[in-house]
Amino acid sequence: MHKLVLIRHGQSQWNLDNRFSGWADVDLTEQGVAEAAEAGRLLKEAGYTFDVAHTSVLKRAVRTLWGVQDAMELMWIPVLTDWRLNERHYGALTGLNKAETATKFGEDQVKIWRRSYDIPPPALERSANESVNDPRYATLDPKDIPDTECLKDTVARVLPYWHEVLAPAIKAGQRVVVAAHGNSLRALVKYLDGISDEAIVELNIPNGVPLVYEFDDELKPLRHYYLGDADAIAAKMAAVANQGKAK
Amino acid sequence: MHKLVLIRHGQSQWNLDNRFSGWADVDLTEQGVAEAAEAGRLLKEAGYTFDVAHTSVLKRAVRTLWGVQDAMELMWIPVLTDWRLNERHYGALTGLNKAETATKFGEDQVKIWRRSYDIPPPALERSANESVNDPRYATLDPKDIPDTECLKDTVARVLPYWHEVLAPAIKAGQRVVVAAHGNSLRALVKYLDGISDEAIVELNIPNGVPLVYEFDDELKPLRHYYLGDADAIAAKMAAVANQGKAK
Repeated sequence: MHKLVLIRHGQSQWNLDNRFSGWADVDLTEQGVAEAAEAGRLLKEAGYTFDVAHTSVLKRAVRTLWGVQDAMELMWIPVLTDWRLNERHYGALTGLNKAETATKFGEDQVKIWRRSYDIPPPALERSANESVNDPRYATLDPKDIPDTECLKDTVARVLPYWHEVLAPAIKAGQRVVVAAHGNSLRALVKYLDGISDEAIVELNIPNGVPLVYEFDDELKPLRHYYLGDADAIAAKMAAVANQGKAK
Repeated sequence: MHKLVLIRHGQSQWNLDNRFSGWADVDLTEQGVAEAAEAGRLLKEAGYTFDVAHTSVLKRAVRTLWGVQDAMELMWIPVLTDWRLNERHYGALTGLNKAETATKFGEDQVKIWRRSYDIPPPALERSANESVNDPRYATLDPKDIPDTECLKDTVARVLPYWHEVLAPAIKAGQRVVVAAHGNSLRALVKYLDGISDEAIVELNIPNGVPLVYEFDDELKPLRHYYLGDADAIAAKMAAVANQGKAK
């Protein structure tokens, strides 16, 4: 049996401020750092260890991973980073307060932008897209740098990383941890569990909680579960679902 | 022209306590963490950036690298780790206070053990060598796990990493930073600059200071220099040289 551990980053400053982050490189809050350490503590206590870590090129995911590594005494494993694990790009909504956006456009429109499968938010003008000149994306074909993304777009760039990098590593026996984002992880989970375009809209992944997948030899998922206190996890998932509501 | 940046880890708890660390996984002190951040600040200020980082499997080197990455806004680069970049293994001296050892065996004997090229300290009994059962060395051939090392032994395991991993990456145009240890870096510098077995004994690399190598296309060194305040660097180098003296 193979296992994979997924972790959405801990609370970021823009989670706290209720702003759309997307590809903006927002750091963790103190609570987010503490969540990462707690995730590592839970994993260590449950006997987990890893041979390699994969994460996005955004610091809230990397710092979450560092906190997990530190708590697990696993600072010595290699850390591979890839833009394909980035958060969904929120286009022109990036940086906006979610509640303000809901007041302006209506909760339903925000929910469509946040959670519809194939309707992207308004796109950034290319000239206003800072990622185009960011060295971390310098090796990408410019057409691969999004100006906005719907979840379907995120799935389309996450799955090649699964098929080409993560799945072969797991099949080869590597114990893998992935520290990433709400929507890049939803993209992966949608594929793994065959979740419909409609049902994925209602699936929320809490910040800073280890999500364990168990697979058979062909990487067919057998089961999945969160580590930690069930009530606390349910409260975190509800908090994610409520972020798009007007205040 | 190619460049390579080497950084010896910041002050560790056992640097502060004047103990032989070797392969013991000692963490940084607060000063060591600050030195790492300062090294990153200096590098960023001087316009450096990196595509990839290499470090040992010891946390004092990894945490130094993390501090550099954080200060440089380079948390997104991949981090590759390898035991070949570890500190020299100090055998049965591991954990002993350097001044106490000097008092007991004499300063000259300690200097021989610390700085002779080919005389190793007394070896650990294999049954007392904790690295043998450490998961970070589980993929090694047991005969590659040392019970003690002289600098010549360290050179013998560092150079394959240079030739097989670092040099090809640098030649391919990657901008590389290596965060490692006093003796694994001395081993590399000895090779790069063709330093004699005798002269390398007197060469000291200060903690937490970026050491820049410039190479021609064939990776022949053209020049090297430290970044930062020259007087502070000289004081740090003298402090390393004095660690083996009796108090």
